[in-house]
Amino acid sequence: MDERQRYWSETARGLTPYVPGEQPKTGRFIKLNTNENPYPPSPRVLEAIAREVAGSLRLYPDPEMGLFKAAVAENFGVPVSGVFAGNGSDEVLAHAFLALLKHDRPLLFPDVTYSFYPVYCALYGISYQTVPLTEGFAIRVEDYRTPNGGVILPNPNAPTGCLLSPDEIDWLARNTPDSVVVIDEAYIDFGGESAIPLTARHKNLLVVQTLSKSRALAGLRVGFAVGDPDLIEALERVRNSFNSYPLDRLAIAGAAAALSDREHFDRIRSRIIKSREALAKGLSSLGFEVLPSAANFLFVRHRERPAKTLLAKLRERGILVRHFDRPRISEFLRITVGSEEECETLLSTLRTILAPADGPGE
Amino acid sequence: MDERQRYWSETARGLTPYVPGEQPKTGRFIKLNTNENPYPPSPRVLEAIAREVAGSLRLYPDPEMGLFKAAVAENFGVPVSGVFAGNGSDEVLAHAFLALLKHDRPLLFPDVTYSFYPVYCALYGISYQTVPLTEGFAIRVEDYRTPNGGVILPNPNAPTGCLLSPDEIDWLARNTPDSVVVIDEAYIDFGGESAIPLTARHKNLLVVQTLSKSRALAGLRVGFAVGDPDLIEALERVRNSFNSYPLDRLAIAGAAAALSDREHFDRIRSRIIKSREALAKGLSSLGFEVLPSAANFLFVRHRERPAKTLLAKLRERGILVRHFDRPRISEFLRITVGSEEECETLLSTLRTILAPADGPGE
Repeated sequence: MDERQRYWSETARGLTPYVPGEQPKTGRFIKLNTNENPYPPSPRVLEAIAREVAGSLRLYPDPEMGLFKAAVAENFGVPVSGVFAGNGSDEVLAHAFLALLKHDRPLLFPDVTYSFYPVYCALYGISYQTVPLTEGFAIRVEDYRTPNGGVILPNPNAPTGCLLSPDEIDWLARNTPDSVVVIDEAYIDFGGESAIPLTARHKNLLVVQTLSKSRALAGLRVGFAVGDPDLIEALERVRNSFNSYPLDRLAIAGAAAALSDREHFDRIRSRIIKSREALAKGLSSLGFEVLPSAANFLFVRHRERPAKTLLAKLRERGILVRHFDRPRISEFLRITVGSEEECETLLSTLRTILAPADGPGE
Repeated sequence: MDERQRYWSETARGLTPYVPGEQPKTGRFIKLNTNENPYPPSPRVLEAIAREVAGSLRLYPDPEMGLFKAAVAENFGVPVSGVFAGNGSDEVLAHAFLALLKHDRPLLFPDVTYSFYPVYCALYGISYQTVPLTEGFAIRVEDYRTPNGGVILPNPNAPTGCLLSPDEIDWLARNTPDSVVVIDEAYIDFGGESAIPLTARHKNLLVVQTLSKSRALAGLRVGFAVGDPDLIEALERVRNSFNSYPLDRLAIAGAAAALSDREHFDRIRSRIIKSREALAKGLSSLGFEVLPSAANFLFVRHRERPAKTLLAKLRERGILVRHFDRPRISEFLRITVGSEEECETLLSTLRTILAPADGPGE
């Protein structure tokens, strides 16, 4: 045994943690590696936080996070008893894995998807099976009808960006009536249609969202889930056996305010969608294969240059993008859709990198 | 099977969550039930948060929480690699249970202690054994030398308030060399001496603290642990398999600022200690048995009146205190030391309740 691990539990010894994208300490990079929003959150968020700071930080927050849950309920037209909240959608997902996806039969998810899923499985001892995406990197819901202990899919999928329609989600929930289907909608607001309305008619459907992307609040750590109150009750039991107060007072106030500003939300996401389309065109013209994306990132593969080379050359020039050294996708880069200016800089930098003059010696 | 639990995991079905003290929605109560600080946090906290709000909430926080860990390291004279941080000490404890206290042999903790401990055990399938306090409700460290998979003790103990000395902790860590000893110091700053300096010489000692009590930041959700870097590494693995960003940007900034203001910290804790001594005297003179307390609460039993009656009568009069309907302590009330004024109101209200005129009909 490794002496360093002498006091560790078997669980701790068996873990290979998720590695998030780099968060550089200095501001000298253009960050297109962690799918943050290039625009600031609603000014209402800052106002709400400023009001809350002046209040009672010495007192515990509302453990029910009522203000925020009410905002979710109001925003999506669902009952408050159908809303769960947590410290970012990662925490919400973690609780869902333990409360709803841990069963004798294996959990199913795509072979190419959010790489945190197998990490949760290792943490909680959940058996799982991956289901291959199609050749074109799409999810085919029919492939998830094998006996299972649950299904989890990001929609749009990460890191590919490919989208499922509400009809496909509806079909899936109907055809796996004995297990829970979790739809992880971290990126849904950039071009997809949420499955939240479907939760009213499927007792086994849980939809998870985050305020980190389309609401521009990655720094505030707020996520939520919507589903049948019986599913929510299981999540609450696990949450209340872990940490009674996952959202601090400022996060509750800021998150509720963010959901109230529909106009700001629509403005910034439209802008990102427009930039994505322009960026996709630009990258195509530079020789990249660009998967169709309904997210705030593009998943691209250059027809000639290796992904690792491009990753390194972009980094040298101050631009961070994300690379996953994993089967099927090791030649792809995931590029966050930044501001118009950042997209322009990315394209012109790539143009320089890809220019024949830069070629010799590689 | 309960149809409502159809989709739940075995884990979710087996849980009886921790129930935190009531957080009333209106301000009409004097809250002496959840051990919050009656005084506001350092003004530096508010300044740091205001600065951070004006920054980049759209960007993820530093997943290493470097600013806060550095503040802990500096404050206690320990290396940054010996510091772990989380969303309140409850989250830190949860990770410690899974990473360091889950073994074949049972975990040991007192029969009367923080009631979240058995809840974590149920969540993670950890076997445990309780060790009775003495007749006088004290922890005797010699009682923890039986074969075990770990030991966890609050110091001072909750809800009793009784204190162990660093020598006793030192003895315990030395005499249980094969398992981890976790000291939960949520209340240490109100009269105890921290075991943090002992972590330098015991590879199996982990000390957990919170900013919720002595730093007056229950609303910000920040806790930390100090121990050998090998213990911290196990916690980091579990944390990074659960949620990469447990502290939001505002919590990191605010918590670091709180630790920097030593003068404010000393002033408010001295004031609470002084109030505690006065309150203990006042309660004794009203016929209460008052356990010796090194915390910001008193654990008291009236010689004649049932705890439940007093609890209800105080509530009617707008004062919340905490009662635990559990073996050995069902006749006790746990009363948070409030401001001087709140303590005065409590005493005068109890005087009325206990007056003979109030007696008939009970």
